[in-house]
Amino acid sequence: MSEVKKFEHIRHKPPAKLQQARPLIIALSPLRTHANLSTIVRTAGCLGLTEVIATGNAKINPKIARDGAENVNLTTRRTLIPSLRKLKQEGYKLVGLEQTTNSQPLLGFPFPHKTVLVVGSEREGLNQETLDILDHVVEIPVWGLPYSYNVATATSICLHAYCACYPDG
Amino acid sequence: MSEVKKFEHIRHKPPAKLQQARPLIIALSPLRTHANLSTIVRTAGCLGLTEVIATGNAKINPKIARDGAENVNLTTRRTLIPSLRKLKQEGYKLVGLEQTTNSQPLLGFPFPHKTVLVVGSEREGLNQETLDILDHVVEIPVWGLPYSYNVATATSICLHAYCACYPDG
Repeated sequence: MSEVKKFEHIRHKPPAKLQQARPLIIALSPLRTHANLSTIVRTAGCLGLTEVIATGNAKINPKIARDGAENVNLTTRRTLIPSLRKLKQEGYKLVGLEQTTNSQPLLGFPFPHKTVLVVGSEREGLNQETLDILDHVVEIPVWGLPYSYNVATATSICLHAYCACYPDG
Repeated sequence: MSEVKKFEHIRHKPPAKLQQARPLIIALSPLRTHANLSTIVRTAGCLGLTEVIATGNAKINPKIARDGAENVNLTTRRTLIPSLRKLKQEGYKLVGLEQTTNSQPLLGFPFPHKTVLVVGSEREGLNQETLDILDHVVEIPVWGLPYSYNVATATSICLHAYCACYPDG
């Protein structure tokens, strides 16, 4: 009698299906490292996202982003504000990821369906000009040092929380 | 009259308080890159975790892990199995992070309080010997290419989900 194994690795498991394209766009302040951008693009690809707006000298490392590099459209802008204003006019809500006054905890945050997730730079976070046009700010709680998540980690946690609100797209 | 700003960056916001130490331990299969281990240690520090068991030649890069390098106890072992058996005897449930037969979606998974999160290697994932002693396996759904998250990203998403179940420790 062959042994029945409870857990067996499934390689190349088919992905979950989206009923529609996700109306979630990532907007990134200038990032210092291409590794962080590339990790975010890999996560975005896995979650079925297709749009990332980056600022400044943004380059994807395909060794880190994997197939995300080909499946995610990267748009680069000199500054984020004009793009954010335009998306707001198109009905998107601008949700910042930051610790601010009036920021709401990520857990339980009811993400608007049409969301632009606006992410700050590694060191400076979101600048005041950007904060001023946001509709909401969410924060991921910290319970210990170093009191701040890596930007790609924080963005990935936040994107996953959005997708948990809209598993089918 | 001074302008009232809705969102203002809060630097050095005090962390959330834990009522007790978190009974959550991270157990890592051999990782190819110290960057992944170090990113996991940074996230662990932020979440108030203190115990990471790594396998093989595990080195923390303090530039990546930040204060996590000093606040998280890193234990290195030649193989994970003996440590996992011991923790199981101490009442911990062993929860793997992998796509397997009978794996449960991360969203809504009721994490046991005393949990060891068991994480696989970048390429091979969790081996069968390790899968055989697990109590549960959780998986993070993927909706698009490259169909697999970076190991530090996946671990961070999963750790955050545990902490969301037990915000006070």
